Amino acid sequence: MPVNDSFHIYDTTLRDGAQQEGLNLSVQDKLAIARHLDDLGVGFIEGGWPGANPKDTEFFERAKKELKLKNSIFVAFGATRRPNVKAVDDALLGALRDSGAPAVTLVAKAFDRHVDLALKTTLDENLAMIKDSVTHLRSEGQRVFLDAEHFFDGYRSNRAYALEVVRTAAEAGADVIALCDTNGGMLPDELSQVVHDVLQASKARLGIHCHNDTGCAVANSMAAIAAGVTHVQGTLNGYGERTGNADLVTIIANLELKKKQLVLPKDALREAFRISHAVAEVTNVSSSARQPYVGISAFAHKAGLHASAIKVDPSLYQHEDPESVGNDMRMLVSEMAGRASIELKSVELGVDLGGDRELIGRVVDRVKDLESHGFTFEAADASFELLLLEEISGKRPSFFNITHWATTTERTTKSGITTKAEVSVVANGKEFTCSGSGNGPVNAIDNALRTGLKQFYPELEVLELTDYKVRILEGRLGTGAITRVLVETSDGKGEWNTIGVHENIIAASAMALEDALTFGLLRQGRKPE
Amino acid sequence: MPVNDSFHIYDTTLRDGAQQEGLNLSVQDKLAIARHLDDLGVGFIEGGWPGANPKDTEFFERAKKELKLKNSIFVAFGATRRPNVKAVDDALLGALRDSGAPAVTLVAKAFDRHVDLALKTTLDENLAMIKDSVTHLRSEGQRVFLDAEHFFDGYRSNRAYALEVVRTAAEAGADVIALCDTNGGMLPDELSQVVHDVLQASKARLGIHCHNDTGCAVANSMAAIAAGVTHVQGTLNGYGERTGNADLVTIIANLELKKKQLVLPKDALREAFRISHAVAEVTNVSSSARQPYVGISAFAHKAGLHASAIKVDPSLYQHEDPESVGNDMRMLVSEMAGRASIELKSVELGVDLGGDRELIGRVVDRVKDLESHGFTFEAADASFELLLLEEISGKRPSFFNITHWATTTERTTKSGITTKAEVSVVANGKEFTCSGSGNGPVNAIDNALRTGLKQFYPELEVLELTDYKVRILEGRLGTGAITRVLVETSDGKGEWNTIGVHENIIAASAMALEDALTFGLLRQGRKPE
Repeated sequence: MPVNDSFHIYDTTLRDGAQQEGLNLSVQDKLAIARHLDDLGVGFIEGGWPGANPKDTEFFERAKKELKLKNSIFVAFGATRRPNVKAVDDALLGALRDSGAPAVTLVAKAFDRHVDLALKTTLDENLAMIKDSVTHLRSEGQRVFLDAEHFFDGYRSNRAYALEVVRTAAEAGADVIALCDTNGGMLPDELSQVVHDVLQASKARLGIHCHNDTGCAVANSMAAIAAGVTHVQGTLNGYGERTGNADLVTIIANLELKKKQLVLPKDALREAFRISHAVAEVTNVSSSARQPYVGISAFAHKAGLHASAIKVDPSLYQHEDPESVGNDMRMLVSEMAGRASIELKSVELGVDLGGDRELIGRVVDRVKDLESHGFTFEAADASFELLLLEEISGKRPSFFNITHWATTTERTTKSGITTKAEVSVVANGKEFTCSGSGNGPVNAIDNALRTGLKQFYPELEVLELTDYKVRILEGRLGTGAITRVLVETSDGKGEWNTIGVHENIIAASAMALEDALTFGLLRQGRKPE
Repeated sequence: MPVNDSFHIYDTTLRDGAQQEGLNLSVQDKLAIARHLDDLGVGFIEGGWPGANPKDTEFFERAKKELKLKNSIFVAFGATRRPNVKAVDDALLGALRDSGAPAVTLVAKAFDRHVDLALKTTLDENLAMIKDSVTHLRSEGQRVFLDAEHFFDGYRSNRAYALEVVRTAAEAGADVIALCDTNGGMLPDELSQVVHDVLQASKARLGIHCHNDTGCAVANSMAAIAAGVTHVQGTLNGYGERTGNADLVTIIANLELKKKQLVLPKDALREAFRISHAVAEVTNVSSSARQPYVGISAFAHKAGLHASAIKVDPSLYQHEDPESVGNDMRMLVSEMAGRASIELKSVELGVDLGGDRELIGRVVDRVKDLESHGFTFEAADASFELLLLEEISGKRPSFFNITHWATTTERTTKSGITTKAEVSVVANGKEFTCSGSGNGPVNAIDNALRTGLKQFYPELEVLELTDYKVRILEGRLGTGAITRVLVETSDGKGEWNTIGVHENIIAASAMALEDALTFGLLRQGRKPE
């Protein structure tokens, strides 16, 4: 039994979500994601289609042995029997039966044109396929759900037939008939009307399965629930083909926080941020900073004039408490930085300014001055934190001092493009020169610097530059253009962002790089010189 | 008058969209985006807040002189007068009046707690501020819209007061009162009820302004329109603070394609894909592949079993024809290249392909191949034109041939940062080596090259690199990351854009630079060697 059998959160990340362009899951990945979903406490986890391909077959074999689910029920997905064979003789249906999954979701066509053109059989045979397949699996003791594919297009094309599909499945023993907006073209108003009508006409228990092609996957799911469906399908982070499936994270948060409908185990929603990002690490698809509730920008505030009011009462500018989903409020230090936002930002970074008005004033002045020279700290938390630490202690944290660097990039007809760098640095009281090469000047300086420093700081080995952004800013007051470089660095456990600004792009990059390595060492617990 | 004054598409990319984390627009960027928005044909373009900061002030000054809008009306944004001063004495209100914008949007508090805690004035004074400010600007001949900030939270807290704000603004002469879900916590069902109630209670013309914090910004906007609002605010690509604003691209496509409500000039929707991506190049924020309608995955099909049915009838698996928004079904062609778009683009550039099917096919293949290697010609017209000319004549237009280059950047404690470059080049049948310095490697190569070439091409003297953008693209198929460089060059009469792609940033820049100078000479009427 799921947490709450009267309402189903049904996850299809491992099946429909994996249809996303650029998303490829190994068997190991699928097991890892299934454990995260179970931690979140979704009612059902659709694992894939056993028998359809070797990977899914292997996954179901390993899941049977290795997955110990504490909250969720494991589901196998597959099609109804082929036309004109007996259910018991259908090999794919047999694979579902033998998958070890306590529940099976069968996909069936609910759109007459699809039966004709894609399935190439008769409308009556399609109904028989549904009836036989559901009956067979039910008689084997499995719980059966039916995905009524292309349901809404089918309803427009041939309402009577679409309803007949729902009735047939329900009468054969399917627990839930999920109405699928397979092509994703629905809007909430029409979808809601159709759900109402189907509920009246069939008395079946209904579910909903939406895609985001009109930007309304979440709203369509919410509208269907309001209209009476009690089973909602979606994927973690909205992964899925084309524009993606309905994002279950958002739907769950909307249900629990806005509608006061509890659908997860107690306190599980607070794990949403962690789990959403952990799954993004497994899929290797960058999280959207703008994802509702759990995006890193979801509770980030830039507008300076909000900051003082936020200090009075955060609820004035937040629709929910970020902690309810495990997220945090973040203040972006921007052009309009005032005392209030600097104080809030420091608290967020865990740096104690102790309410010191003079110190805060000094930080505000530094930020304003640097911003007037092209710096922006809203995307460079780590550089901002170094600035804070510098103002608190009177000295910028430092592990090494670069005295000289040079980098050359050359194109010759013989050897193509080569880049080399030489860096002289003082660390641990010793000056030395190191060299490196790379696929660009920044990479070469980074390699040279790390080669030289690793004798003192072996932990630099694991750091990796994961993003690099360049912006040319127009000159002000007659000066030339300046270059702003943002660098993202990772140590495998987290990322941080640093900034460099200079009229010379290489100098700006070296500055951002120096901050990146310094902050990386602080993160590892090193005490500066 | 906008295209259709009975229904407003109102864009706030340049103001509210710019609140997005990591998004920083220069004055030049804002002008470029305004031109794209005008091409798309939105009714209103909100430019920013003149008087609030030097950048917006400069933008309005330049917009007055340089922006020639063919479809859209330009709007200035600002607040109602401060408490307890006369409207005529309020400097910020004066800046709005003097901005040159034919319309002004005033933001006002509609939430009693905000009036108290953030604005720190009385409820009556807030109403007086609204009345006076609207009256003042109307008497000066400007059209006035009112953004009723935090309207829905205000309606829950004090319905009578929220309604009084709407009535006060309407009676003072505001054309539209936009109900703002400022904190973004609404869902369509409740929002729809509130809009119905406000329409009944006030008779004012209403607008809607949504954020995506519940994943429902588009659906909320659609629900408000269904309930009777006739003015919808949003941003290109859903840019905006936290989870973003309502994505106007999606809303427009939903209205035109799903609701058959035409809101853009004829055929403009077909430019949506192009404009969405061109604006993403300006903002330097990566487009979401899963963006409805215009994401590169929005009509991309991965599921193998769809393929044959799609061949029978693409509409079986697509909710709309991708061409209706200028997008493509991805299994057939690449991002941009279709015969028709190549032909149209060529006509636009004034290059005659003479309907030569074989030639057009060759160009399509080249573009597809280059795009698969990270090129994008959307923001590099000049490089695309060079490619066209190359395919027409069998030889890329060329005035010089670079045989070798090298550039070194060095930082010493004595002389600071220096960058030098040496370039060997063949021109007019003569090989020679020239050197230059600059404030970065690209600038140094550019200077060296121009110093060497000016004996033959004195007109190179006037060229200037006016913008330089870098993006790191994730590697495909196991290759490393590659760097895409876009260069904008000006000859004082106009600008052109070129592209270079290479794993080495300097090599990519040199490639874009070579195109930039070559195209500059073509523009001056020089015949290539």
